[in-house]
Amino acid sequence: MEGLPVLGPTVNLYSLESYTFGVKEQQLEKDKSVQARLDRMRSKYEKEGIRRTVEGILLVHNHNHPHILLLQIGNTFFKLPGGRLRPGEDEVEGLKRKLTNKLAPTQSTQYPPKWEIGDLASVWWRPNFETYLYPYVPPHITKPKECKKLFLVCLPEKCVFAVPRNLKLLAVPFFELYDNSQRYGPLISAIPSMLSRVNFNYI
Amino acid sequence: MEGLPVLGPTVNLYSLESYTFGVKEQQLEKDKSVQARLDRMRSKYEKEGIRRTVEGILLVHNHNHPHILLLQIGNTFFKLPGGRLRPGEDEVEGLKRKLTNKLAPTQSTQYPPKWEIGDLASVWWRPNFETYLYPYVPPHITKPKECKKLFLVCLPEKCVFAVPRNLKLLAVPFFELYDNSQRYGPLISAIPSMLSRVNFNYI
Ligand SMILES: [Zn+2]
Ligand SMILES: [Zn+2]
Ligand SMILES: [Zn+2]
Ligand SMILES: [Zn+2]
Repeated sequence: MEGLPVLGPTVNLYSLESYTFGVKEQQLEKDKSVQARLDRMRSKYEKEGIRRTVEGILLVHNHNHPHILLLQIGNTFFKLPGGRLRPGEDEVEGLKRKLTNKLAPTQSTQYPPKWEIGDLASVWWRPNFETYLYPYVPPHITKPKECKKLFLVCLPEKCVFAVPRNLKLLAVPFFELYDNSQRYGPLISAIPSMLSRVNFNYI
Repeated sequence: MEGLPVLGPTVNLYSLESYTFGVKEQQLEKDKSVQARLDRMRSKYEKEGIRRTVEGILLVHNHNHPHILLLQIGNTFFKLPGGRLRPGEDEVEGLKRKLTNKLAPTQSTQYPPKWEIGDLASVWWRPNFETYLYPYVPPHITKPKECKKLFLVCLPEKCVFAVPRNLKLLAVPFFELYDNSQRYGPLISAIPSMLSRVNFNYI
């Protein structure tokens, strides 16, 4: 496609081999069940209003195909690194705090991750205290319960990650995520479609 | 969500009632079957190389929920307005030519559509002379056969459309498209996810 105007953003992706992965202390989930999680969400909502969540899309490449870094809990559940913002907390600062908590080494290393938060990639809404989120506010919903924002995170050329020992960090290729909401859920499986306008530069 | 930084683009959507829809002469499909279409694609490819297609995402709102304008052929097949670029043709100019051909009145009216082409929304690739497209170049495909780009089209406050009489133009709500690839196909059903980062301004 030489010589054509490129109108989407350009993002550098470095090879998976540029990164080092270590482990750190475990970080257990706060809730024992999905219902316990939704109940906690409801009681927080009554005190603080809409839940604001931020998550990071961390990309690498392998054989010039984009891969996304996903945390796996047990053998089934996948999630993006991120979490809930504190009341009034800035989105970008909050996402950096969450990424450090989940993925940065606790001891100093030569290449700590420096988080550079890029474009907003997607915004999802939870209309009720239920598991479903949608990429729009459904009609006649005036008080959504959660707004989740996904940001592209531009990784440095190399760095050292540390993953809580009860979690796994996987580099999952776009071709595995696409059209696979059964395994990855509707949000994560939609990431290749959300990012198709991005022009990846494989380094 | 007042007071929070908005980081996605903002797009004005006008009410469906702002627009007038008329009819014009029919525009028959070039091919009688999917196989005939793929065969024609192959012989064009041999002469001209990769097929470049551009399509427009035209949005309106109804009750403050985004709707997309889709062309329907017969009772089942849906498509975005757009089509193939000529060799060397500029993407934006080519999309305007296609939109005029498909949707502009042939007689002069008080409010002809003025096409303002906005952000690149998505890019899809056809690796082989088959019906499947993907929101990435699949691994080990060095010569994709088609690159399809979807652009947001910013509609004016009001205008007059004219639709070929063998086609229907429908305003389909996001909640109907989402998670409905069985009816709309993987590309059109992914539009709500592609555009979730856009901040819609309902006017
Ligand atoms: Zn390979
Ligand atoms: Zn791989
Ligand atoms: Zn209504
Ligand atoms: Zn409607």
